[in-house]
Amino acid sequence: MQLEKHQLDRHNDKLFNGHQRKLSFVQEFTPECEAIIKKLMAFQIGIPSWALGNGGTRFGRFSGAGEPRNLEEKIEDVGLLHALNRSSGAISLHIPWDSVADPSNIRNLATQYGLRFDAMNSNTFQDQKGQEQSYKFGSLQHTDKAVRKQAIEHNIEVIRQGVALGSEALTIWLADGSCFPGQLNFRNAFQRTLESLKEIYAALPAHWKVFIEYKAFEPNFYSTTVGDWGQSLLFANKLGPKAFTLVDLGHHLPNANIEQIVSLLLMEEKLGGFHFNDSKYGDDDLTAGSIKPYQLFLIFNELVEGMDARGMDHASDLGWMIDASHNIKDPLEDLMQSVEAIMIAYAQALSVDRKALQLAQQENDVVRAQEILQQAFRTDLRPLVAEARFRAGGALEPLSLFRDLELRKELIKERGRETVSTGL
Amino acid sequence: MQLEKHQLDRHNDKLFNGHQRKLSFVQEFTPECEAIIKKLMAFQIGIPSWALGNGGTRFGRFSGAGEPRNLEEKIEDVGLLHALNRSSGAISLHIPWDSVADPSNIRNLATQYGLRFDAMNSNTFQDQKGQEQSYKFGSLQHTDKAVRKQAIEHNIEVIRQGVALGSEALTIWLADGSCFPGQLNFRNAFQRTLESLKEIYAALPAHWKVFIEYKAFEPNFYSTTVGDWGQSLLFANKLGPKAFTLVDLGHHLPNANIEQIVSLLLMEEKLGGFHFNDSKYGDDDLTAGSIKPYQLFLIFNELVEGMDARGMDHASDLGWMIDASHNIKDPLEDLMQSVEAIMIAYAQALSVDRKALQLAQQENDVVRAQEILQQAFRTDLRPLVAEARFRAGGALEPLSLFRDLELRKELIKERGRETVSTGL
Amino acid sequence: MQLEKHQLDRHNDKLFNGHQRKLSFVQEFTPECEAIIKKLMAFQIGIPSWALGNGGTRFGRFSGAGEPRNLEEKIEDVGLLHALNRSSGAISLHIPWDSVADPSNIRNLATQYGLRFDAMNSNTFQDQKGQEQSYKFGSLQHTDKAVRKQAIEHNIEVIRQGVALGSEALTIWLADGSCFPGQLNFRNAFQRTLESLKEIYAALPAHWKVFIEYKAFEPNFYSTTVGDWGQSLLFANKLGPKAFTLVDLGHHLPNANIEQIVSLLLMEEKLGGFHFNDSKYGDDDLTAGSIKPYQLFLIFNELVEGMDARGMDHASDLGWMIDASHNIKDPLEDLMQSVEAIMIAYAQALSVDRKALQLAQQENDVVRAQEILQQAFRTDLRPLVAEARFRAGGALEPLSLFRDLELRKELIKERGRETVSTGL
Amino acid sequence: MQLEKHQLDRHNDKLFNGHQRKLSFVQEFTPECEAIIKKLMAFQIGIPSWALGNGGTRFGRFSGAGEPRNLEEKIEDVGLLHALNRSSGAISLHIPWDSVADPSNIRNLATQYGLRFDAMNSNTFQDQKGQEQSYKFGSLQHTDKAVRKQAIEHNIEVIRQGVALGSEALTIWLADGSCFPGQLNFRNAFQRTLESLKEIYAALPAHWKVFIEYKAFEPNFYSTTVGDWGQSLLFANKLGPKAFTLVDLGHHLPNANIEQIVSLLLMEEKLGGFHFNDSKYGDDDLTAGSIKPYQLFLIFNELVEGMDARGMDHASDLGWMIDASHNIKDPLEDLMQSVEAIMIAYAQALSVDRKALQLAQQENDVVRAQEILQQAFRTDLRPLVAEARFRAGGALEPLSLFRDLELRKELIKERGRETVSTGL
Repeated sequence: MQLEKHQLDRHNDKLFNGHQRKLSFVQEFTPECEAIIKKLMAFQIGIPSWALGNGGTRFGRFSGAGEPRNLEEKIEDVGLLHALNRSSGAISLHIPWDSVADPSNIRNLATQYGLRFDAMNSNTFQDQKGQEQSYKFGSLQHTDKAVRKQAIEHNIEVIRQGVALGSEALTIWLADGSCFPGQLNFRNAFQRTLESLKEIYAALPAHWKVFIEYKAFEPNFYSTTVGDWGQSLLFANKLGPKAFTLVDLGHHLPNANIEQIVSLLLMEEKLGGFHFNDSKYGDDDLTAGSIKPYQLFLIFNELVEGMDARGMDHASDLGWMIDASHNIKDPLEDLMQSVEAIMIAYAQALSVDRKALQLAQQENDVVRAQEILQQAFRTDLRPLVAEARFRAGGALEPLSLFRDLELRKELIKERGRETVSTGL
Repeated sequence: MQLEKHQLDRHNDKLFNGHQRKLSFVQEFTPECEAIIKKLMAFQIGIPSWALGNGGTRFGRFSGAGEPRNLEEKIEDVGLLHALNRSSGAISLHIPWDSVADPSNIRNLATQYGLRFDAMNSNTFQDQKGQEQSYKFGSLQHTDKAVRKQAIEHNIEVIRQGVALGSEALTIWLADGSCFPGQLNFRNAFQRTLESLKEIYAALPAHWKVFIEYKAFEPNFYSTTVGDWGQSLLFANKLGPKAFTLVDLGHHLPNANIEQIVSLLLMEEKLGGFHFNDSKYGDDDLTAGSIKPYQLFLIFNELVEGMDARGMDHASDLGWMIDASHNIKDPLEDLMQSVEAIMIAYAQALSVDRKALQLAQQENDVVRAQEILQQAFRTDLRPLVAEARFRAGGALEPLSLFRDLELRKELIKERGRETVSTGL
Repeated sequence: MQLEKHQLDRHNDKLFNGHQRKLSFVQEFTPECEAIIKKLMAFQIGIPSWALGNGGTRFGRFSGAGEPRNLEEKIEDVGLLHALNRSSGAISLHIPWDSVADPSNIRNLATQYGLRFDAMNSNTFQDQKGQEQSYKFGSLQHTDKAVRKQAIEHNIEVIRQGVALGSEALTIWLADGSCFPGQLNFRNAFQRTLESLKEIYAALPAHWKVFIEYKAFEPNFYSTTVGDWGQSLLFANKLGPKAFTLVDLGHHLPNANIEQIVSLLLMEEKLGGFHFNDSKYGDDDLTAGSIKPYQLFLIFNELVEGMDARGMDHASDLGWMIDASHNIKDPLEDLMQSVEAIMIAYAQALSVDRKALQLAQQENDVVRAQEILQQAFRTDLRPLVAEARFRAGGALEPLSLFRDLELRKELIKERGRETVSTGL
Repeated sequence: MQLEKHQLDRHNDKLFNGHQRKLSFVQEFTPECEAIIKKLMAFQIGIPSWALGNGGTRFGRFSGAGEPRNLEEKIEDVGLLHALNRSSGAISLHIPWDSVADPSNIRNLATQYGLRFDAMNSNTFQDQKGQEQSYKFGSLQHTDKAVRKQAIEHNIEVIRQGVALGSEALTIWLADGSCFPGQLNFRNAFQRTLESLKEIYAALPAHWKVFIEYKAFEPNFYSTTVGDWGQSLLFANKLGPKAFTLVDLGHHLPNANIEQIVSLLLMEEKLGGFHFNDSKYGDDDLTAGSIKPYQLFLIFNELVEGMDARGMDHASDLGWMIDASHNIKDPLEDLMQSVEAIMIAYAQALSVDRKALQLAQQENDVVRAQEILQQAFRTDLRPLVAEARFRAGGALEPLSLFRDLELRKELIKERGRETVSTGL
């Protein structure tokens, strides 16, 4: 299923005048709108292949309908999304769920949809059918060398598959840790993990990066071997220049100041990428911006400031990805809401009056500094986001168009009602 | 598989002298040991039928081996546990996972093992195959009357099955809630839930109780309709004298003072029962006493004090149950560790010098009050727990005996390696 | 020091055209702007007398300058604030810090500034010089009757003073609790507190309310006797129809869903009032809306919905107050930022499309429900707030005017640099 | 006031037989008691000079009586404590609260009591009377060079005073941070702090260490510039071999796994010292072991294992100190309870069967690993602690002796009732 140009046009035509009216209002009161729009157009957020079906919890999973049945259909879904919002031009695969026999076919398919392959994701937190060694007690940290070897080889295989697809990064999220005091010698677990990571690192192609993702807890409930940014940074530093820390917004202890972490990782030149989602309690994996939109803005505020200070390219020097679990919403609709929230936060961060902020900070004018950030956050910049989408060939209101065209109904027609996306 | 008397005897004989030596030491320095032993003997902790196989997380599940394949084998497992520790004389069933065609057979089987049927548990947090209505958006709270009706009827069916087995209580844990702001009108959700509960309440036999379990979050990640003790108490009060609050140790926000909640619920005569487990982050469902044993003791301290103040019977006036998820341990070993930790905490609470404590409280002698509680907690009362077990016909060291006899190996021989317990 | 009309006029004249431009844009796209403006004009937020000087932490306090030296000057400060924003038409006193010899003079002074006296606040969390009994181990909960008596009499004295000033409510925030396990018998502490509250309740004039404020922790670090909304509601119900729960946004455990609590308290007809502030970690007492503005909006969303469902008057049927600690900002500037954030959140909540939301909820259209709330939150309604202020005779941009006129400099000139506000 | 030998002897004589009875029981069942006793005797915990009077919260402070009026009396208090428990042989000073004109006199006084001077503490979180620059917006991080310079010079002055007293370490706890988003550029604040620390580091004598203490929040409520162990480690690594991280148990986000942090810092050879206390909510500064004794044991378990792995000397290679706030208990009694809890946890950690634990870890025998730790924790090792105290010349039951001799009454007689310890 593909979005037809005339469908898009009809939608945009209908909304054009209202949009223009709002856009020119924003332009009247916001400096540098044109620059912001250009940056918004360049900004692409990777979509994880496992977020195209409904996720669940340990208590159960409620299937959606018309979920993609294979990698081809997942690519089709992301292609559809990208056609609608022109900000989802990358897909992130998960091996073995998305293992493919013929990568060049898959690569061609993606190209047709204007998609590239974002960071590859390995999986050593589950046992696959027929797998020789079990990850019950960890993978790269395991006390048994044979388990570590299997996990290392799996990661190298993921790199191999990624190379074939044109990806240039590997994301390693390790569930490794312990559920009970005494289970693990933390130091030894760290050292074994480091040795394993070194072997994977050695297999990285020259231009590849490896992202070390940290997480405070779950599925291990006492300790996690890459448990916070400090641990991830230790690993990244010990590994070398291709290793970076990856920040997932849901992977922190309660009340953590994530924007400060982001700033410091940029300072250390070790921030590698981002997993967007939102949460109230733990790794809730909710729609980005649905719970704490101001935090999302503050994070982007640090990203923009820190990347600009280093002369980094916003669009390409960090890996941007959504990592959410769509338990009760239509996955495509949910992703559209996440992308929208991310783009708004990015636009707001771009609109911050940096010079005034620096001056206020220099003078410890706390009231003024707050006013400057709130001014950016309270201003309704959605017209800029819509304009960027429009100029890039997308829909002014992607979600409305998706619903108006009853695209999910089409997908169900094609794929059936009872499908379950691989990996879910 | 059943534990033979001669196996028990050989084990106890071997350990008897050492045990006696320790017991008499404790008796020398602890007042009222005999009374404590008697109370320990009477105290029985219900075992949930779903805790006999390995549990998992949303990221995966690592199967154990020799897991019970049906309700009969679950009863056999609890029977084995009870033969070992003589403190696990009840099983708590979960419908539909444990639905039985012939309840009288099952009842006889349980009787053979010296087990009674604890509170029945309904399930409206998952969709069962072939189920007409979906619980994706809640059950007793659902906006659609047909869904509510289905959930109400399920609960009434659970009561019916419980009556046939001789159970006398229904535990309702509702996953109902919302994942996103706006999804739910909290007030209306409360009212609909209340109406549904009233219908279930009306179906309770005269001598039955219903336990309203609360939980702060998960599987819903924005709001839960029975989210804390205050909400549960509201429901219990609006329902009537047969309705009570059930406290699960893992169902609170970070840092909650659970012992205070217990005390106040006893004050209001609305504490109904307990789900034991331990946790560091959320509803981690770890072995009781494995993370915060002092908290477990403090809770028992309130239970003993509060029940004694009302002249309640410790063993029978509240429902005591373990509710844990054995993700990486052998379920039977894990349960033995939980029961042991609970019995120790109970013994310590029984040994608190109540009069001295009251006096210290009266005089605001905070240092002394702390000394009194720490004296009880720091004293090694394991010999009293072992003695109670021994006198009741159990093993002095259940876990050692279980391992020495290689009972799991026996179970695997009987049941096979690849079994998965129903409901997991 | 008083704001002159010509100063206000000059300020408003200068900004008028820009404001009009923005206002008409909002009006074009937002239904019922006129009704929203009217409600905003009627809405008044009480200012606590202790928030007019710089607050501190246990580690120290950094004085501001030109702080009010007495109650008269505190009233002057609130008067100035109210002249600027026309939304701060009430002051909330704290006894003994604000005890006055001649209430009618004070009353006249307040009237001159257009201020009324909001809820009175008692203080039994500190020992005052020369006080007979100490509150070291609590006040209304104390084991010693003489201490309770002193605390009860103090509260009754506060009522008496409030009556003389025309206040109609008493807020009781109790620090009572315990720092260590064992220190307190929770049940007895509750009962003693209840008995004490009953005596205070009996002294309430016919039209008065008493607000029972809860708080999870601090200054007691193990238990608090009125620790959460459930406990406060128990007290309020046991006391009678004049007793209500007061919600302070910073008084919860991490991750609490405050908007749900608000909704349920409204359902139970026991929500009495609100203390606004914001926080990241505990009772941080930061500027309202400075950390989690979306949460503030969600709370107002419940307030508007719940009050409308009961036909309550937004402006008068609940007590609205700021309770913050201005540790590093100019107190008046900080209060202006808080009031602005509150008014924006209120305006956004008023603009929610209620009918569409109800429909989405009815149909479990979670995506749509989120869109509706985000539409309200993302729309820039500041022009409506400014218009309401303007029509009521205030400044279009109060903070700018305050700074342009260098009003703090004026206050320092009048009062001196080294002043410390009473109670700080 | 000094403890007389005959008073000690009388106390010990009375308790000797009971003690011997318990000791020999422990010796019968616990291997290597003699080695444990020796290590307990060598272990000394520093007492902070500011913990000898009653502390308070921002809401108030309830004075005790007989508090030390000057440094001499603080030393007297620690001397008394040390005479009682023989484990408090060091005092940690806080400048300017404990600044002395004549260090050699003070040094002699301490020597008379058998005390040495532990790490010195600087204070840049408060403004002292007459101080030129204010720390309202930070000290070492401040945007104004003059403020940084003042703070640097203060730290160097503290080193100078410490040298005169024979101390060999400087502890820097920085309150520096921000209360509101936007207030601070995190990166610049980090860099300025680093530059300032480098100047202080350069002033360290050859054999000195500097401890960089981290804290998650309070008194700043949005960000802290040395906010977690990762940030502290970054600073320590950038400074050089004399710089170390200091862990205070109360300075973490909710649910942090502190024992893992300890283990990793030891791995990195950057753990410098410890501040003991306990807490339920934040930096509650309660008596060590009063809330989570098992956590305290688990931390010591990592300390013993990690230090032994490096061949470190338990008694001298890390800085051990209590840092608590005695808000409602007699400070000396409170300190005795803290020291006792620490010694018990240390003894338990020493008694862990390391070889068996390693084996269980190697085999992923999680149940066994838990049993091994619980065996150590559940065993009542208080007789070993008492024996160590006794052999070192202290009291078998320090708290009882303190109360029996009515030592506080004596101190009040000497010093008066209304004293307030300097710095409180």
